[in-house]
Amino acid sequence: MQKINSSSTGKDARKEITGCRFSLSVMSDDYVSIILKAIKSVNTQNVWSTTDALSTVYRGMRVHVVDALKCFFVNAHDDSTHMGLEATFSRGSPADTDEDCVFADSVERLNQTNKKFPAICKIAFYSLGVVEYPKHIAYAINLAARREVLERVSHYAYELEGDINELFDHFGEVMEYAEENIKHYVLQVTLSVNSPTKSAIGPV
Amino acid sequence: MQKINSSSTGKDARKEITGCRFSLSVMSDDYVSIILKAIKSVNTQNVWSTTDALSTVYRGMRVHVVDALKCFFVNAHDDSTHMGLEATFSRGSPADTDEDCVFADSVERLNQTNKKFPAICKIAFYSLGVVEYPKHIAYAINLAARREVLERVSHYAYELEGDINELFDHFGEVMEYAEENIKHYVLQVTLSVNSPTKSAIGPV
Repeated sequence: MQKINSSSTGKDARKEITGCRFSLSVMSDDYVSIILKAIKSVNTQNVWSTTDALSTVYRGMRVHVVDALKCFFVNAHDDSTHMGLEATFSRGSPADTDEDCVFADSVERLNQTNKKFPAICKIAFYSLGVVEYPKHIAYAINLAARREVLERVSHYAYELEGDINELFDHFGEVMEYAEENIKHYVLQVTLSVNSPTKSAIGPV
Repeated sequence: MQKINSSSTGKDARKEITGCRFSLSVMSDDYVSIILKAIKSVNTQNVWSTTDALSTVYRGMRVHVVDALKCFFVNAHDDSTHMGLEATFSRGSPADTDEDCVFADSVERLNQTNKKFPAICKIAFYSLGVVEYPKHIAYAINLAARREVLERVSHYAYELEGDINELFDHFGEVMEYAEENIKHYVLQVTLSVNSPTKSAIGPV
């Protein structure tokens, strides 16, 4: 385990840091206890973490950031409560610093979960600083189609439906592609479970 | 009022369309009635609108999209219920079409509201297809500072605190700047009211 700060890394180390800023919304009077229980259930040893009134941020290696976030959401989930997770994954911002990060010694995940449940999701994928960004969006959408979780391409997002494990695997595969092909990317996702709405109206 | 479709506009008309995809999360057992009541309270005559299980989309002129969204959120608000609004404003996507849009004949707003209440907010501002995107982010942050609503610049976002009217005015001023200076922009905002957390821990 290596705690990263400015003095312990080379100038370009910050480009290795994957981050996620996320907010869980629980449509229930019991939202505080549900959220706090889920927070405590995550082994965050392999990520740097901070929480404020708006969101929580994890920073570290991609595999551990995705692992921790997935564990958090899966453990918050039950079979009836409607909840939504908004998450912004990002890597490579020129404004990023080497600080506020944990790099693990291993890629072994600490938060394996076995739960399966259906979820719906909207995604927007941004490549910053490059003219040919639409080709990267098309690539991500094709990955979702190949995985058979693509529901449709809509205004300002593409939408997924599938098992929660498949959806997180899709996030991971897009981020892996982005690491190899895009200097600075942002992957914006919103997950929803147990929505009383299947199509027509609300919960907006 | 002009309903836009492909045959009624020039090729570049789509660049005029401002859109917003948004989701309201209400941390209460009564979330369905609160959301439905707020939806019905908005005069949406000047925007095209559609709702699915994940979000609602408004499309039209900037002034009317912001006006309708603000009315929706202000009317959903009460003095005690914790709720969050995630909204993606966007304009100029090369994948956008001329369809699904209402252009009003006038810029006169249909949904004036007088309510004032404090809110907190995180924002990310993306300029697509340009190398010098960080300068636009800096400009937006300076606008927030000048308006005295900037709380801090954080990982992957800048954070605001202030009266809801000031915050929506800030969204509007960033979008106005973006219209003049950026071919394709995305403004991602998350508003939160009545959070039980002032700083340290949860509601993530």
